Amino acid sequence: MSGILSGCPVPIENRGRVEMAHGGGGSKMQQLIEEILLPAFGNPEGAARHDSALLQVEKIQLAFTTDSYVVRPLFFQGGSIGSLAVNGTVNDLSMSGAYPVAISAGLILEEGLPLEHLQAVVSDMQTAARTAGVRIVTGDTKVVERGRCDGMYINTAGVGIVRDGVDIGPHRVQPGDAVILSGDIGRHGIAILAAREDMLDYCDTASDCAPLNSAVTILLNSGAEVHCLRDLTRGGMASVLVEIAQASGTFIHLREEAIPVSASVRAACELLGYDPLYIANEGRFVAFVPAADAETALKAIRTASVSGEAKIVGTVQKRETAGVSICSKYGTERHIYMLSGEQLPRIC
Amino acid sequence: MSGILSGCPVPIENRGRVEMAHGGGGSKMQQLIEEILLPAFGNPEGAARHDSALLQVEKIQLAFTTDSYVVRPLFFQGGSIGSLAVNGTVNDLSMSGAYPVAISAGLILEEGLPLEHLQAVVSDMQTAARTAGVRIVTGDTKVVERGRCDGMYINTAGVGIVRDGVDIGPHRVQPGDAVILSGDIGRHGIAILAAREDMLDYCDTASDCAPLNSAVTILLNSGAEVHCLRDLTRGGMASVLVEIAQASGTFIHLREEAIPVSASVRAACELLGYDPLYIANEGRFVAFVPAADAETALKAIRTASVSGEAKIVGTVQKRETAGVSICSKYGTERHIYMLSGEQLPRIC
Repeated sequence: MSGILSGCPVPIENRGRVEMAHGGGGSKMQQLIEEILLPAFGNPEGAARHDSALLQVEKIQLAFTTDSYVVRPLFFQGGSIGSLAVNGTVNDLSMSGAYPVAISAGLILEEGLPLEHLQAVVSDMQTAARTAGVRIVTGDTKVVERGRCDGMYINTAGVGIVRDGVDIGPHRVQPGDAVILSGDIGRHGIAILAAREDMLDYCDTASDCAPLNSAVTILLNSGAEVHCLRDLTRGGMASVLVEIAQASGTFIHLREEAIPVSASVRAACELLGYDPLYIANEGRFVAFVPAADAETALKAIRTASVSGEAKIVGTVQKRETAGVSICSKYGTERHIYMLSGEQLPRIC
Repeated sequence: MSGILSGCPVPIENRGRVEMAHGGGGSKMQQLIEEILLPAFGNPEGAARHDSALLQVEKIQLAFTTDSYVVRPLFFQGGSIGSLAVNGTVNDLSMSGAYPVAISAGLILEEGLPLEHLQAVVSDMQTAARTAGVRIVTGDTKVVERGRCDGMYINTAGVGIVRDGVDIGPHRVQPGDAVILSGDIGRHGIAILAAREDMLDYCDTASDCAPLNSAVTILLNSGAEVHCLRDLTRGGMASVLVEIAQASGTFIHLREEAIPVSASVRAACELLGYDPLYIANEGRFVAFVPAADAETALKAIRTASVSGEAKIVGTVQKRETAGVSICSKYGTERHIYMLSGEQLPRIC
C-alpha cells in the first residue's frame, strides 16, 4: 500500500491477531489483503482488488465474484441479510459491466436459529433474486454449535457475462471525467445502527439495499461512454473514491453541496459524530464518464427507479498526488482519507 | 422426501429451531433443503441437490458450485480448513464432469485469530490450488467479534467447464452398472476426530483430503462410458449411495469385503462404535460405469495417484424399491439407510 493517503499503517506482525478493523473496508483491510492474502493467492490481473474477477472462457468474458454477509441484526428497516446477500452480489457483477446470470448461496446456520427466521431470510433472497432477474442455482448449508455464529452468515458468489466491448474499471478513470452519484448516501449504515441501538428509536431511515443491474443496463445502453462504476459499500463513498483515486493515479474533487444526504441520515450522523461520506450504502453507486457524456449518462441513470435522484457530484483532475478532496459550500477544500477501520462493524 | 429409505422424518415445524443434524448430510438436512430451501429458491434443474449447477452460456456448459467450510479444528493430520476448502470445490466441479477454471474465497474471521493461523491457512489454499491447477481469482474478508465464529470459516465457490458430450449424474445410473470406489474410506472423519479427542492420541490416520480432478480427467479420457460420479463427503459413502439410489430409482448392492478400510480407521471405528460407511471422506469418490466398461475404467482410475487402490465394490440392480444393501463375507445382506443427522458434526 502506498501510504500516501492512508497514513501508512505499520506492517502486520506475524504474531499479531485479527482485529475488527481488518474487516472494515479501510486501510487496515487493504493491508491484510496486500500483506497476507494477495501474496498467497497471487493475482495476475489484480482482480481481487475490485468487485469481480474477469475470466475469458473461449469468446465469452465471465465476471465472477463472492461476498460473505455477517450483518447484525439479521433483519432491519428496508431489508435483511437475505436481500443484502443477493443484491450485494448482483451489484458487484453489475459494477464490472456484467449482467448477472447465476448466484450461489452458502448458508452457515447457528444451532438454535428459529426456522421462521431462516424461512424469512430465504424468502427475502428469493424476492431479491426475482427483482434482479437472476437465479439462485446452487447452495450449501452448514450448521455450527450455539455460540459459534450469530444466527446465520450467508455467502453468495455470482457469475455474470460482461457485455461485448465493455471495459470498465479504475484503469480507465482520467482527468476530465465527471463523477455521477446515483442517489442519497448513508442510509444503509444508519438503518443498521438504528436496528441495533436504542438511541436511534426515532430514526425512520430504511436501508437503500437494492439491485443496481437495471440502472447499469440503462446507462450502458445510453450511448454514454462509461469509464468506471463502483457501488459504495463498506467504508462508504469516501473509502471507495480514495481506492479509485489510488488505483487510477488521479485526483477526485467533490462538491459537498451536490451530495444528497437525507434529513434523517444527517440528523443521526450529527448525533453520533459520523460523517455520511464514510457510512455504507447497499444500493448506491458512482459512475465515471467523460465530461462530454455526463448529461447523457445522468439523464439515462435517472430513468431507473433506484437512481432517480442521481447527480453530478465531482470531477476528476490531474494533480501531483492522487487523492480525493471535497469543497464545502463556503469554498473551503478538505482532503478525504481512507479510514483505518470502519465506524460501524458488520453492516453487511 | 420419499421416506422410503430415511424413516420419513416428521415435517419441519414453523416454530422449530435449527439443530446440528440439519447440517449433517443425512435425512434431516435433506428435509431442510426440501421443505425450506428449495420451495424458496425454486430450482428447475434440480441442480442444488447435486454437486454443481449446470449453466448453458452460449455454446459453453458451465458448472457452478459453492461450499462453506466450518471444520473444527482448523488444522488436522493431512490438511487444514484451507486445503479442504479448495479441494472440496475442485471435487464438486469434477464430479459433474467439469474441469475447474476458477475459485472464489470468502473468509469469515474471528476477532483474535492469530495472523499466523490465517497465513498458514491461505498458504494451504494456495498449495491446494496449485496442485489442482486452478486459480483463486476473487475473494472477500469479513471479521466478526470474538465468540461469533470459531477461528475462521471459509466459503469457496467454483466455476468449471463441462467437457463436450459429457452427461454425468444420477439420472444416468442404471441396472447393470458397476460401482467403482476410488480408495479406502473413513480417513478424513477419523483424522478430524483424532485432532479433537484425546482418546485417539495413538491414532495416526491422516485425512484423505485431495483434489480428484486429475483422476476424473484420466477416467473420462479412458474411453469408458461414465454414468455418474460422486465424492463421498458428509454422511459418508452410505448417505451418498442412498441419495443416488433414490434419485435414480435403482438398487445398489455392495460387497463389504471389497470396500477398503485401513487398520487404523477400523480400530478407531470399533473403539467408538462407528460404521466406516458413514464416516466422511474428502478425497474419495464412486464412479458408476456400464459393466462392460468396468475394467477399462478401473485400470484408468488406478493410474491416478489419488486412486491407485480403486476397486469395484458393487453393482446396480433392478428391484422393486430403490435402496442400498451390503453383503457381508458370510453372505448375509443388510440394508443401508441414510442417517438422520451425522455421527461427527463439523468435519468440513
